[in-house]
Amino acid sequence: MGKVFTATEVAEHNTRKSCWVILYGKVYDVRPPGGANVILKLAGKDATEEFDPVHPAGTLEENLRPEALLGNVDPSTISAVEPQLGGIEKPENHPPVQSLLNMDEIEELATKKASKKAWAYYYSAADDKITKRFNTEAFRSILLRPRVFIDCTECSLETTLLGNQVSMPIYVAPAAQARLGHPSGEAGIAEACGGFGALQIISNSASMTPEQIVANAVPGQTFGWQLYVQDDRTKSEKMIARVNKLSAIKFLVLTLDTPVMGKREDDQRGGNVINELTAMESPEGSEPVPEKQVFAGFDPSLTWTETLAWLAKHTSLPVVLKGIQTHEDAYIAALHNSQVKGIVLSNHGGRSLDTAPPAVHTLLEMRKYCPEVFDKVEVWIDGGVRRGTDVVKALCLGARGVGLGRPPLWGLAAGGVDGVKRTLQILADETKTCMRLLGVQRLDQLGMQHINTRLLEQQIYDGPSGLGAYRGRFPAKI
Amino acid sequence: MGKVFTATEVAEHNTRKSCWVILYGKVYDVRPPGGANVILKLAGKDATEEFDPVHPAGTLEENLRPEALLGNVDPSTISAVEPQLGGIEKPENHPPVQSLLNMDEIEELATKKASKKAWAYYYSAADDKITKRFNTEAFRSILLRPRVFIDCTECSLETTLLGNQVSMPIYVAPAAQARLGHPSGEAGIAEACGGFGALQIISNSASMTPEQIVANAVPGQTFGWQLYVQDDRTKSEKMIARVNKLSAIKFLVLTLDTPVMGKREDDQRGGNVINELTAMESPEGSEPVPEKQVFAGFDPSLTWTETLAWLAKHTSLPVVLKGIQTHEDAYIAALHNSQVKGIVLSNHGGRSLDTAPPAVHTLLEMRKYCPEVFDKVEVWIDGGVRRGTDVVKALCLGARGVGLGRPPLWGLAAGGVDGVKRTLQILADETKTCMRLLGVQRLDQLGMQHINTRLLEQQIYDGPSGLGAYRGRFPAKI
Amino acid sequence: MGKVFTATEVAEHNTRKSCWVILYGKVYDVRPPGGANVILKLAGKDATEEFDPVHPAGTLEENLRPEALLGNVDPSTISAVEPQLGGIEKPENHPPVQSLLNMDEIEELATKKASKKAWAYYYSAADDKITKRFNTEAFRSILLRPRVFIDCTECSLETTLLGNQVSMPIYVAPAAQARLGHPSGEAGIAEACGGFGALQIISNSASMTPEQIVANAVPGQTFGWQLYVQDDRTKSEKMIARVNKLSAIKFLVLTLDTPVMGKREDDQRGGNVINELTAMESPEGSEPVPEKQVFAGFDPSLTWTETLAWLAKHTSLPVVLKGIQTHEDAYIAALHNSQVKGIVLSNHGGRSLDTAPPAVHTLLEMRKYCPEVFDKVEVWIDGGVRRGTDVVKALCLGARGVGLGRPPLWGLAAGGVDGVKRTLQILADETKTCMRLLGVQRLDQLGMQHINTRLLEQQIYDGPSGLGAYRGRFPAKI
Amino acid sequence: MGKVFTATEVAEHNTRKSCWVILYGKVYDVRPPGGANVILKLAGKDATEEFDPVHPAGTLEENLRPEALLGNVDPSTISAVEPQLGGIEKPENHPPVQSLLNMDEIEELATKKASKKAWAYYYSAADDKITKRFNTEAFRSILLRPRVFIDCTECSLETTLLGNQVSMPIYVAPAAQARLGHPSGEAGIAEACGGFGALQIISNSASMTPEQIVANAVPGQTFGWQLYVQDDRTKSEKMIARVNKLSAIKFLVLTLDTPVMGKREDDQRGGNVINELTAMESPEGSEPVPEKQVFAGFDPSLTWTETLAWLAKHTSLPVVLKGIQTHEDAYIAALHNSQVKGIVLSNHGGRSLDTAPPAVHTLLEMRKYCPEVFDKVEVWIDGGVRRGTDVVKALCLGARGVGLGRPPLWGLAAGGVDGVKRTLQILADETKTCMRLLGVQRLDQLGMQHINTRLLEQQIYDGPSGLGAYRGRFPAKI
Repeated sequence: MGKVFTATEVAEHNTRKSCWVILYGKVYDVRPPGGANVILKLAGKDATEEFDPVHPAGTLEENLRPEALLGNVDPSTISAVEPQLGGIEKPENHPPVQSLLNMDEIEELATKKASKKAWAYYYSAADDKITKRFNTEAFRSILLRPRVFIDCTECSLETTLLGNQVSMPIYVAPAAQARLGHPSGEAGIAEACGGFGALQIISNSASMTPEQIVANAVPGQTFGWQLYVQDDRTKSEKMIARVNKLSAIKFLVLTLDTPVMGKREDDQRGGNVINELTAMESPEGSEPVPEKQVFAGFDPSLTWTETLAWLAKHTSLPVVLKGIQTHEDAYIAALHNSQVKGIVLSNHGGRSLDTAPPAVHTLLEMRKYCPEVFDKVEVWIDGGVRRGTDVVKALCLGARGVGLGRPPLWGLAAGGVDGVKRTLQILADETKTCMRLLGVQRLDQLGMQHINTRLLEQQIYDGPSGLGAYRGRFPAKI
Repeated sequence: MGKVFTATEVAEHNTRKSCWVILYGKVYDVRPPGGANVILKLAGKDATEEFDPVHPAGTLEENLRPEALLGNVDPSTISAVEPQLGGIEKPENHPPVQSLLNMDEIEELATKKASKKAWAYYYSAADDKITKRFNTEAFRSILLRPRVFIDCTECSLETTLLGNQVSMPIYVAPAAQARLGHPSGEAGIAEACGGFGALQIISNSASMTPEQIVANAVPGQTFGWQLYVQDDRTKSEKMIARVNKLSAIKFLVLTLDTPVMGKREDDQRGGNVINELTAMESPEGSEPVPEKQVFAGFDPSLTWTETLAWLAKHTSLPVVLKGIQTHEDAYIAALHNSQVKGIVLSNHGGRSLDTAPPAVHTLLEMRKYCPEVFDKVEVWIDGGVRRGTDVVKALCLGARGVGLGRPPLWGLAAGGVDGVKRTLQILADETKTCMRLLGVQRLDQLGMQHINTRLLEQQIYDGPSGLGAYRGRFPAKI
Repeated sequence: MGKVFTATEVAEHNTRKSCWVILYGKVYDVRPPGGANVILKLAGKDATEEFDPVHPAGTLEENLRPEALLGNVDPSTISAVEPQLGGIEKPENHPPVQSLLNMDEIEELATKKASKKAWAYYYSAADDKITKRFNTEAFRSILLRPRVFIDCTECSLETTLLGNQVSMPIYVAPAAQARLGHPSGEAGIAEACGGFGALQIISNSASMTPEQIVANAVPGQTFGWQLYVQDDRTKSEKMIARVNKLSAIKFLVLTLDTPVMGKREDDQRGGNVINELTAMESPEGSEPVPEKQVFAGFDPSLTWTETLAWLAKHTSLPVVLKGIQTHEDAYIAALHNSQVKGIVLSNHGGRSLDTAPPAVHTLLEMRKYCPEVFDKVEVWIDGGVRRGTDVVKALCLGARGVGLGRPPLWGLAAGGVDGVKRTLQILADETKTCMRLLGVQRLDQLGMQHINTRLLEQQIYDGPSGLGAYRGRFPAKI
Repeated sequence: MGKVFTATEVAEHNTRKSCWVILYGKVYDVRPPGGANVILKLAGKDATEEFDPVHPAGTLEENLRPEALLGNVDPSTISAVEPQLGGIEKPENHPPVQSLLNMDEIEELATKKASKKAWAYYYSAADDKITKRFNTEAFRSILLRPRVFIDCTECSLETTLLGNQVSMPIYVAPAAQARLGHPSGEAGIAEACGGFGALQIISNSASMTPEQIVANAVPGQTFGWQLYVQDDRTKSEKMIARVNKLSAIKFLVLTLDTPVMGKREDDQRGGNVINELTAMESPEGSEPVPEKQVFAGFDPSLTWTETLAWLAKHTSLPVVLKGIQTHEDAYIAALHNSQVKGIVLSNHGGRSLDTAPPAVHTLLEMRKYCPEVFDKVEVWIDGGVRRGTDVVKALCLGARGVGLGRPPLWGLAAGGVDGVKRTLQILADETKTCMRLLGVQRLDQLGMQHINTRLLEQQIYDGPSGLGAYRGRFPAKI
């Protein structure tokens, strides 16, 4: 560990067989497993600028064998990689975030200010992005039914999510790599949420540790923590143990919609190295990809029985299942409602499987085939929410919480903490305006009588039940 | 009041705490309440050019405390704000309005001639303007069914609206701020309507007083007056009292679709100050907007019981309810038909709630769920009418009157009184041509057999009744 | 009549009150009635170049009072108007018509070669051209069902239309003003049709006389003649008498879809004078248009009873009614099948009433509500046919003849007689290829089993019968 | 045969009546029959560069009379036609195929690298290419239904096609003229397929002989051979006899969807000569095309009874019928399942009849009207497959094999053998990712519960059965 290398020496180790990089002034051997094709691009170089904004403190220690640390680099010998950070480096004459009027304008400004890499990571979605677009279009195809001559002087967005008091039903969904957009990162999002009484779910792939993110929480501020179960279960168990100790974190969100990673071509074109240590081998070679290597790090073998039991052994926090996309799985989830207290209808922002249905499809399916689920677990949704009217429509359909994936990241990239605040404020204001124009004062007054879903009803699934192992008389009452 | 200030002195009072403006040579203190964020842009300046075209005579006296008038300005010390008026200031080589063939061309010319501010105010609609576009597209998706071998030599557009004889079913809907488009303002629209025997509804936010607008009415010319109920009811009562005295005004139109203002982003971008004294605090700060401040001036607490009773105490004029967007509210309105003689199916030209349904949806809903309403009250519609075929389709569906919102304003901006005349003539001609090609001589011959609404029928609401407090067996006969 | 004027003298008469023009070296007084606003543009000038290509020989004599002929012009004093004729004047390097592969390419070439006026007249359609586009799109939304393993060595397009043997079911629909596109005019179209055994219907507003058009007919070549009944019935009676004498003309086509002219804005913008002597007053003034003046020349008072009886008095030719757009009128027409031998489902190429349905809608309506009509009268269609697959689809739905409106005019403008031949050949070849790929050898084998009209069926009318005076139990069997 | 001509002598024979060309140093008389209009463009020239890449060895000997070979050319007298070959001649700075992420990018690169002629041949489809586009859009309109909490660690694409073990259900459909895209030709595709365990069907119009294509097959590699029955049956019989001897070829694919060639305008514009000796007279003259000449070479008289019996006499290989586009023909095919072991639902990549339905329509029709067919014959499909999700959707609907038409040719043109490998790898990887995200490990687990076909179900045929000679009670059980 006391060994000192020159940059020139490091530079010689730039092959798959011998692959060194400089990180935070230290020299590491990052040959697979652990590294991947992508990191070869940085082999032999100082990768700190690329690595830092996308990995929380402690990542190296957790993922590399101790012997991977070879020594220190002689600082006088290195010349930095050209930084590609977003958000703050380009002092162009951009409009202030306070002047931005809607989510599109925030994304537009973020696109200008963010690094190409950050943009590609946030923007990308699976294949042809059909589901990404459909997420938003599905909301737009629902019509509202404004009622008149109703006193709407008062109007409140207050509600509870899993029993936690929040100021609005809008929450920040788990999305990775916030520091890629702005140095304030996930802690900056937390600061904005604190001011608005909004719930935040911390990504398993956050670029900061959970401890850092919740450090400055205001009293009563609520967090959830997202879990991707690792191949090496002990890693996940260690993280759960850390999370169990953080009182601000009230529940775990187990993400199920990405047992393997979707094909996000913008991201691949953007040359992102962000998934180096945890993500899939990119399919660049012409040889068929060997089995088991497709999503290095994450465990694709999860099942209802095994995984929930394992989780119960390691935490007593309520569990929310994220990525439910069929009424069948919503139904099965509700059968586990002693442990599973909520589900998130989500297609991962269109990032997993292209042509997967938007969450409003699943809501309508559930209302048709198993409406009792709404009484058994809380139903949250995310994906494509860009207007207060979208929020209201989801609530009318039975959702209790409405998550934002990309918008807070665009907000962060556009203006740091203030950008996230602007994002939340616009959506909260729009949601209230919509409620008042519907003649509604409280969230619990919203219902199917306020929306016309005729077009979507003509599109939702009406084929055979796919209940599989849970087959039986369907819809059986839970 | 005799005090004289220099422009330089006024200019020092340009903050929220001390905010003076010059209007018509006088100096006013316009601190909130009364003013708003927007007026700060003009703080310390001569605001006459901005203020005049959008406020009727008497606005200052009615809205400012007497002590707000601080004195006079020394005229030699002021330099005018750059004028932004539309319609007449730009002597470019524009085509004469007589050569314009349709509403699109009139809007196109108006867009060129109007100030950016006027354009933004007229053009804007809520959020993504989905409803604004849908208003027109819904008409286009209805097919006509021309009948042949019918004598159509004679063809008449004559009808009555609330018992008043008019030459056509097309009327001018209440739209604010006509002087923003052309100095002849609402009185110019009245002049055009007089020549065509068309009814005009005067906006509550007209830029001229009702007395000015009806001053030169021709014999038999009919007006309605639109009411937004003010927070301070005495203000509304005073206006109603004035209107009661004007014999040309035959009915009141109570607008219900805007208890709070919709989010009109084009307008916000246009930097309009037009709502300064009466409109909402624009959501520019990052702090949540305090309750009750969202729509300063207008009363969001109206209800069927309280408001109609209050109105009955102050006028015996027939009441028309504008902004009905569901069959449920149409049904309830018909229950009040001793006082309510008409309803306007309207989504405020798409300016209130985006993704609200077009009026033809509500017409079809009513025909399906409560067709008896058509016998109890007159049903008028507005929103998206751009062709004579649109007018005919609305009449076939059961509407008796068809309102024009933006087109007369575009006409005014394009060519003053002549522009409004051209607008009315084109639509009247197109309507007659359509009737003849359908084999119809009189309006009362139009019916459902002349239109194919199959596509729209697949889209209209078929969910649960939202009758609320009026719930019961539905559709109960009225 | 011997009086001689100088061009300068004529030029002084250029107002509505005193309006002279020079035509073929003579001076005429063309004040209304007879002339119209449009001709004022040519007042005082030599209008021959404008007038000639759009009016058949004899037009002046028939339409002007004898005293309108004032005398001759001194040829040495005139300078011609800039000619705007199409088709042959521009010797640019255009591709040969033999290289054109489809209707779009023919229209594209014609658009380049034709005068702006000819283009505008041919291209224009009512209002926003929704029906014009829908005519073609409706065909495209029908899917074909190719059958396999069927011997299609032989394939014939032969059929009969009203008992006349023709080589293909495709015919040339009546379309006016062929000489506007090319000097060979309607006689050139006749020449092309003769070579292909195709039927041609001569327009009432042809730019050549019927006698000229049929002069060079080949043995067995079949024509129809289109009748617009004139306000002055004696004019129509004279024309019918002339047509009765032409043995090549086998039937009359009474056009019913244009009792008043549709609003064709492209044509109005193109400054066409072609309707001067027979067409409507263009709505250019701001005063309401006086009754009865809207469509000077044509009789808008036609009815089933009166008009058919009148026609029977003047000809024994079979009658075809053109412009049927509802199953109700098809049904009524079939009730008159002692005299009415055919109907043409047509919306006048989208030129009359915008948002009128395409002919395939009416075919589907008839199949649903009154299929017996197909056994009582021949059913022809026109509008939007651009491919052989369109022809086949119409035949599968029950049509016996399929008319081409614009394509032969584009062909003529693109290449004279050869252009029309190319048009007919392409469509005949495509039709045969389509039949073979469906596994069909003869036209009578085509049926509903060869097409999938599911999308259109979701759009066709299903409202109340509009049988009107013919009301009764519906569908009553004929 | 010993005669030697100079190029100048050959050049004199450049008319329809006397038409010589130079091929491979020899001089041939290629007057019709045998040649066609197109070859006239090369009359009198050295056509080797045009001819070679599109015709397999032996073509001249098989198609020309022996006396057509006139002698040799004196090589010193000829100057070559400008070569137009694709794939390798343009050494521009193109991206490596390994960096291409999807089918669109591969087509994009191929479009840049290929000759205009090759592009036109591969890209073209019938008429307006509506069916070509619809093939892909139909897949996109099917939604997937991802299931969660299912172990998807293992995932296999292995299956059998007609009893032959293959590594994936994706196969290379018969597509002609591979050497037009790259010199490695069909043998290059075979090399790529060998590495991936993928089945390949050799086109009847391949640019290499079957013997050449299968020469380097790896053990267990499976081929099919496509048959277009020739007018001159003895030619087809000779080819079948050759194919019978090739043990790698396991079945014959009889293509039925092109009894006459569709109208491929891009190809006609590209000036392709590829169909010279075997294909249709292009409709360039203005005279009607004589009967029987439309598709010189191919036999349009095939029928279920005659042709299958003839085929049985010449081969004992299993037969697959390609080009089935209705449930009726699928049903009839299954009646012949002693000989017909598979059917390919195909519209020839949209190249035959425009507005023919996509294969997924036929799959849905079959599931509705004659699901028993799936148990009687293997059902394969092709057309429009561009994503792994498309493959999965076809399999869910009941297809067993999924063919690729254009993609391997684009791959070949983009990068030779490596380009085809990249094509196969991308689709295999995408298919696996899709299966895992649906929670599926094996192909036989895919079913209707994994897809939402609601939109397509609203479009499929529901008219009368067109069973024709096979009419009876329908759907009769097979």
